[in-house]
Amino acid sequence: MPQTTISAYLIKRLYELGARHVFGVPGDYVLGFYKALEDSDLAVINTCDEQGAGFAADAYARFNGLGVVCITYCVGGLKVANTTAQAYAEKSPVVVISGAPGVNERLRNPLLHHKVRDFDTQLKVFEQLTVAAAVLDNPQTAAREIDRVLHAAVQQQRPVYIELPRDMVNVSISVEPEPARPSPEPDAVALAEAVAEIAGRLHAARRPVVLAGVEVQRYRRQRQLMQLVEKTGLPVAATILSKSVVREDHPLYLGVYEGAMGRGEVTEYIEGSDCLIQLGVFLTDVNLGIFTARLDAGRTISATSERLSVGYHNYDGVTLSHLLPALLAADLPQCHPGPIPRPPTPPECFPVPDKPLTVRYLFERLNQFLDDATAVLADPGDAMFAGIDMTIYCASEFSSPAYYTSLGYAVPAAIGVQLARPDLRPLVLVGDGAFQMTGMELSTVARFGLSPIVVVLNNEGYGTERPMLDGRFNDILNWRYSEIPRVLGAGRGYAVGAEDELEEALLAARAERETFHVIEVRLAADDRSEALQRLTSALAQRVRA
Amino acid sequence: MPQTTISAYLIKRLYELGARHVFGVPGDYVLGFYKALEDSDLAVINTCDEQGAGFAADAYARFNGLGVVCITYCVGGLKVANTTAQAYAEKSPVVVISGAPGVNERLRNPLLHHKVRDFDTQLKVFEQLTVAAAVLDNPQTAAREIDRVLHAAVQQQRPVYIELPRDMVNVSISVEPEPARPSPEPDAVALAEAVAEIAGRLHAARRPVVLAGVEVQRYRRQRQLMQLVEKTGLPVAATILSKSVVREDHPLYLGVYEGAMGRGEVTEYIEGSDCLIQLGVFLTDVNLGIFTARLDAGRTISATSERLSVGYHNYDGVTLSHLLPALLAADLPQCHPGPIPRPPTPPECFPVPDKPLTVRYLFERLNQFLDDATAVLADPGDAMFAGIDMTIYCASEFSSPAYYTSLGYAVPAAIGVQLARPDLRPLVLVGDGAFQMTGMELSTVARFGLSPIVVVLNNEGYGTERPMLDGRFNDILNWRYSEIPRVLGAGRGYAVGAEDELEEALLAARAERETFHVIEVRLAADDRSEALQRLTSALAQRVRA
Repeated sequence: MPQTTISAYLIKRLYELGARHVFGVPGDYVLGFYKALEDSDLAVINTCDEQGAGFAADAYARFNGLGVVCITYCVGGLKVANTTAQAYAEKSPVVVISGAPGVNERLRNPLLHHKVRDFDTQLKVFEQLTVAAAVLDNPQTAAREIDRVLHAAVQQQRPVYIELPRDMVNVSISVEPEPARPSPEPDAVALAEAVAEIAGRLHAARRPVVLAGVEVQRYRRQRQLMQLVEKTGLPVAATILSKSVVREDHPLYLGVYEGAMGRGEVTEYIEGSDCLIQLGVFLTDVNLGIFTARLDAGRTISATSERLSVGYHNYDGVTLSHLLPALLAADLPQCHPGPIPRPPTPPECFPVPDKPLTVRYLFERLNQFLDDATAVLADPGDAMFAGIDMTIYCASEFSSPAYYTSLGYAVPAAIGVQLARPDLRPLVLVGDGAFQMTGMELSTVARFGLSPIVVVLNNEGYGTERPMLDGRFNDILNWRYSEIPRVLGAGRGYAVGAEDELEEALLAARAERETFHVIEVRLAADDRSEALQRLTSALAQRVRA
Repeated sequence: MPQTTISAYLIKRLYELGARHVFGVPGDYVLGFYKALEDSDLAVINTCDEQGAGFAADAYARFNGLGVVCITYCVGGLKVANTTAQAYAEKSPVVVISGAPGVNERLRNPLLHHKVRDFDTQLKVFEQLTVAAAVLDNPQTAAREIDRVLHAAVQQQRPVYIELPRDMVNVSISVEPEPARPSPEPDAVALAEAVAEIAGRLHAARRPVVLAGVEVQRYRRQRQLMQLVEKTGLPVAATILSKSVVREDHPLYLGVYEGAMGRGEVTEYIEGSDCLIQLGVFLTDVNLGIFTARLDAGRTISATSERLSVGYHNYDGVTLSHLLPALLAADLPQCHPGPIPRPPTPPECFPVPDKPLTVRYLFERLNQFLDDATAVLADPGDAMFAGIDMTIYCASEFSSPAYYTSLGYAVPAAIGVQLARPDLRPLVLVGDGAFQMTGMELSTVARFGLSPIVVVLNNEGYGTERPMLDGRFNDILNWRYSEIPRVLGAGRGYAVGAEDELEEALLAARAERETFHVIEVRLAADDRSEALQRLTSALAQRVRA
């Protein structure tokens, strides 16, 4: 049996699963493993704070297929509890690797530094936030435990936890060949029955439509989705969380469906359908317009990574991954939808000198600014809600934590995205409140030579909360965001308040591709997109309940 | 029975227990409670990121007796997992209050935003990190639950967790008078036996000595400790975690005991004692010089908040709080220690123009700079280890997470300390790595008109780790810390590399008391204090194990 070490085996498996970068902050319990990483083919990206590493790894996972965050025991690990929860909630396969006190140090339960209550406190926390967890404290089982946990991350597209006691890093192990893990096959008869039933519903339907969810992206089924759409002529819409799952200039694309909060014609088309095919859709509140969605379960077919339901009955064991190829192979009726709603073409913008910027103009201009090589990363708030109406092209991507909605994602996400996809230049849309949480990760951006364009929507506080319930607690300090390059000794800063100033900043940012640009956009405190206005009036009722 | 609401009762109880400020970041699940806070006698201090609020509340608890952090569900709560763990590990009574989805919103388990796995995921996480937890989902029991949980925080001096569903905030409740909670009384006979045994040991001892730990501070027993010391003439030392428990210019004060890592004469005095009386001491690794302590249990008396041990036997139910008054009332022998080790008097510093700064000079100069109204807040790293040798005066305080050693504490701690104790001006000692984690909370400092002096020890990376195991992962971007006031539009910045430059900056900072000052001190990457050198060579052996 081939000999290796625990750390070498772990690194090899991460590499085989596609990881090329590891995000984190070193600390003494994990230093030995950091050294092993530095000597490997994985690049270490150390961020300012662990939170930044967690968000970067999450974004990397979404764009690369697997993300890795590596931190020290408790003081590092517990700082990524929130980012790991986000990865769990939104199905992002992040591997959390934590250093830990050595097995031999734990004898007689001493009060080693960083310990909270017991040696397994951090493990118990992460068992709540991951789909599989292992402590590599036994050389006999370490390799199989690594395999088991990484398999769960890929299979379930959710985070996992690996704890590596520091005296285990360089321990030799023998590795038997990994046992084959065949994907569970569906019952062929059940699958055939399901496909026949779906075909029958499609035949009978007057206005069938597909709603494509985030699992299509996570399980890399975009190509099959498009084949299905083009084979059948079915129109297709996305959800907020899955925005950009379909190239948005595709002639069969309707737009983003978000219940009563979205564009009325898309809402009407989806809710009026007599055969709604949901593929990999999460039924979440923000995703569905804070429960303003009016979907008739009896007329809905829904396939997820867990099961298929048709009307009010379920096919257990039949999943999205089984159904898509089966539908492609089946004899399905042609759909002739006639004219369908289409996302509005972004209007041409003609910047007027000295004309104060509005949210509306800003997003129209940014939409024009997009090209085939842009990844739009939006923090929750108006950055996300106004961003929904932007048109995302083929090679581009839109990413936002639209379900979990944790603030502070977008700037560190740019690090993960640009490393995973150097062909894409991130356009970060972030509110001032969110920027103050993690925006200084621009330091990491600078250190690793990345070049996002960061647009800070400065409306002097928590603009999403003001219309729900306002108070001084929604105020924040008015930073001069454009001065940040002075602190970092890198990047370019712009403070813009008028249309022509925005124009100048965007063109300068586009022209200079070697560094990051931070563009502070000064907006009126009460200026917000129509989408956000609809959202906050729905939420305000619950806040005041 | 008097009528009130759940939020009003919670706020009233916090106020009665001494809280005057609440730290946090608002979010929609907690907005209603924020409104109630704003309308109350508690001041809301909203920070840039929840992590900053958690550290500020921890520091506030250490200086005020109770701290409160209030955040939204999951996306806020899980960001304070680490700071709550620190409060647990180091015994700091922090009340974590989290907003949550309304009880009525949870029906049929919908995918509400911010939800991770189940509605109780966050509760399960905090059960690992607190000594009591409650979800206020029942108006019948809410008041008693609030009492139970807050009592545990005060009694055990550790964090607790309260989850407040948003539709419970304004629910009316009747409150019965709180049942009396008598402190458990010790068995009077057992206590008498223990005191007699201790008196006997003191009679027989040639060189008895007291080691005063952090529980003396947490349970506010400093005055009783000093009475005991002065009544008996017993010399007294502190640990790293309890540094400043005794006014350090007191003639019976020896210094900080930290095993082989500390000043040799203190180590020799403590380890050579034939009767060591430990009062409220945590036996932790950093606290005890990474297990270089050589303490003879047979000659040790140790009283903590949980029990008393004398030699190898224990008195169950007899605690520090019982023992101290009993010793003060008892007939104890006089101790005549003769000459004892004393902390060295800080040398006079005469700044030499253009002479490059060293860690040694810096701390000698800062020591002179201290006065009776300074609180020294040190982040782990050389800021903490070199800080140990500073002499802290009576009304002053030294605070550092010396056991849990989480980076990023000191800057947000300054917010909590100065609000809890407006008579103290914080002197923050922080490494460049730690500053990059939470230093931008200077924004909160500016917003609330606070005025710490922040000394950033810039040695271009993780200086504590380099001597253990070095690699590129210990490098960080070299910020221009003195430019931060430009971003915040507040404060003063200085970049100093020579002794005279430091002098000028310190004098300017002292003179201008209305704002914060950030002094970047440029140090050679390989310059570190003697204390840190001893620590890292002890740790390096474990890292490379």
